[in-house]
Amino acid sequence: MEHSDRADQLDATDPLREHRAGFVGAGSPLVYFDGNSLGRPLAVTADRLATFVREEWGGRLIRGWQERWYDLPLTLGDEIGRVCLGAGAGQTFVGDSTTVLLYKLIRAAVDAADPARTEIVIDTDNFPTDRYVVEGIARERGLTVRWVEVDREAGITPELLAPALGSRTALVVLSQVAYRSGFLADARALTRLAHDAGALIVWDLSHAVGAVPVALDEWEVDLAVGCTYKYLNGGPGAPAFGYVATRHLDRLVQPVQGWMGHADPFLMGPGYTPSSGIRRFISGTPAVVGMLALVDMVELIDSVGMDAVRAKSTALTTYALASADDLLAPLGVEASSPSDPDRRGGHVTLSHPRMREVVATLWELDVIPDYRDPGGLRIGLSPLSTSFREVYDGMVAVRDALSAA
Amino acid sequence: MEHSDRADQLDATDPLREHRAGFVGAGSPLVYFDGNSLGRPLAVTADRLATFVREEWGGRLIRGWQERWYDLPLTLGDEIGRVCLGAGAGQTFVGDSTTVLLYKLIRAAVDAADPARTEIVIDTDNFPTDRYVVEGIARERGLTVRWVEVDREAGITPELLAPALGSRTALVVLSQVAYRSGFLADARALTRLAHDAGALIVWDLSHAVGAVPVALDEWEVDLAVGCTYKYLNGGPGAPAFGYVATRHLDRLVQPVQGWMGHADPFLMGPGYTPSSGIRRFISGTPAVVGMLALVDMVELIDSVGMDAVRAKSTALTTYALASADDLLAPLGVEASSPSDPDRRGGHVTLSHPRMREVVATLWELDVIPDYRDPGGLRIGLSPLSTSFREVYDGMVAVRDALSAA
Repeated sequence: MEHSDRADQLDATDPLREHRAGFVGAGSPLVYFDGNSLGRPLAVTADRLATFVREEWGGRLIRGWQERWYDLPLTLGDEIGRVCLGAGAGQTFVGDSTTVLLYKLIRAAVDAADPARTEIVIDTDNFPTDRYVVEGIARERGLTVRWVEVDREAGITPELLAPALGSRTALVVLSQVAYRSGFLADARALTRLAHDAGALIVWDLSHAVGAVPVALDEWEVDLAVGCTYKYLNGGPGAPAFGYVATRHLDRLVQPVQGWMGHADPFLMGPGYTPSSGIRRFISGTPAVVGMLALVDMVELIDSVGMDAVRAKSTALTTYALASADDLLAPLGVEASSPSDPDRRGGHVTLSHPRMREVVATLWELDVIPDYRDPGGLRIGLSPLSTSFREVYDGMVAVRDALSAA
Repeated sequence: MEHSDRADQLDATDPLREHRAGFVGAGSPLVYFDGNSLGRPLAVTADRLATFVREEWGGRLIRGWQERWYDLPLTLGDEIGRVCLGAGAGQTFVGDSTTVLLYKLIRAAVDAADPARTEIVIDTDNFPTDRYVVEGIARERGLTVRWVEVDREAGITPELLAPALGSRTALVVLSQVAYRSGFLADARALTRLAHDAGALIVWDLSHAVGAVPVALDEWEVDLAVGCTYKYLNGGPGAPAFGYVATRHLDRLVQPVQGWMGHADPFLMGPGYTPSSGIRRFISGTPAVVGMLALVDMVELIDSVGMDAVRAKSTALTTYALASADDLLAPLGVEASSPSDPDRRGGHVTLSHPRMREVVATLWELDVIPDYRDPGGLRIGLSPLSTSFREVYDGMVAVRDALSAA
């Protein structure tokens, strides 16, 4: 069967197909291959924001804090935890950027570690902000960064991590899905490895949440952070979420101690007493407006279930890699993503020395992937807003652009 | 003249009166005395947000970053600087919460200080989050907090600050407008005093910006932060702004080193190199959705000018205090705010032992001030959205509630 027909057949039998129409612009001819970087908005989100301004902010005014907003970072956190993270209530919160949350949670972990544990272990292919944050914290706390060399086309495995761990390890910082290759790490096994060495682990779920299954409680993860503007469609710069396992909640203290993490924010007395529970990881006033879009997407994912989302995601990346093999491999393109769907997240990267110029050409044609050095065309396939036909059209455009390059 | 007639006369001759109708709900019978805590939204903001979702986020998708969003923290920062702060371009940015920005800028300042300077000076009446952040940083950096005792009905003056300063002072942290009394500090004189002692100063402008004149460049301020959801009407949890004077830009480094403050964010290579200029104070992905409402209000303030805003603000607080003197003093209410308008910000606090219950009663009557311990009814008068008649109606409601209490 032609790839084109196969795409139409896959769309016709896609159990999630009806949901695509709910996203702004998803019916347009534009091919969006960057939902892993910035998810499309749901159409209801436009109305939600306007209604929020007119009725909730404009109508309830300051009363909104008592009525809903003060608890929103925790209630929305619990929903993300339940729907997407396999996390019981009281462990997840929304607030700050991913970078700031990484700083706060990593600091909380290393500040509480045995002083004999002087190393933070991180892999060389982790997302830049994770690496920068770890380097900065190591410098300011007098710790050492222990780098695990990971080939950018492969990913972090127990075999690679094990030799880096030992009695000096304070903390391990890894990403569940690699931002370039899309490699899906075995979070359960890697977490156990960190624990066997007596260390804690922080998982960055930014490229995973909303696309792949996550089971933080079951895997006994200590800490996690994640981005909400990728597969959770929270909008540009939407606040991140953080997770701290119940057993650590009253033991760890984060460094940015502000009024919203105080045991009694409106006491306003002298001296900081951290709140019990997850609230102590909040610092300043929660970004309420920034959280609203996220509410819609978490509800949608809840209604279809993460298993169905993952099944569609796997089908999309499988189809994309098969199409690439057929249409692009003859032009010298190589897949830089795992062929095993169980080791693959929601995006794939296709490599060719000319991909930088190809991406520039594609953007002019309203085909929107992104480019990551070196030579990587990154294709993010947001499961609920992407059709198989869209993938096919995009692949044909890549082929044509590469042929002309 | 009766206060009621006087209110109508003041409204009739108010040069800014036409702008009130632009705010959601400003024509309703509800009396809003909490614009200093959460400003009303402009009606255009509802449309701006919905249009943003449909056209900019939904239409431009990831391209929006190159086209506008990536620079928005700096372009909007420059606008706030020009319109509200007396700050030349390239020194102001928007991002993170006020608490997180206080942490970042205070850390940047003390980390760069002469190690012989081991004290951070702050007053006891500063806003809680400022005090908590300073206490936390002092503890983690091995510094001492030197407290300046300030009576909560007075404010920080050169006479009070001077004895606390000396060769050990690394940094002074003050608020321009006190969150309870509304006392307006002499920022120029206090800044000079800090400099004479060889220290830097951080001004918290949260209760000042958009209500009182600020001249950061002229006063030679080193660093400042401020909140945007009060008199800048950015919406609940809108991101804060930070200011770093040009002379410090390449000297100071903040601790939360993330990809968006890197010299080349999309290089994504090993090692963190801070951007030149103000961008190095950004950490993670900017909260674009959270900044949008702010754009509308800064434009409006620009169109009328901060001098006109301050004149209206002063007229409103003067009228409020005169009404309180007439209607509430006979019931034992005392003003806890400066009588000199030149030493007063945009809100006033009225004290009485029963104010906690009075505020609860008022809320049920759709008269919305807030309450601050001990016994303070705090009345925030957002200059562009508050009428004199609204103040009068609110004062009558306070009188009636207090009489019945």
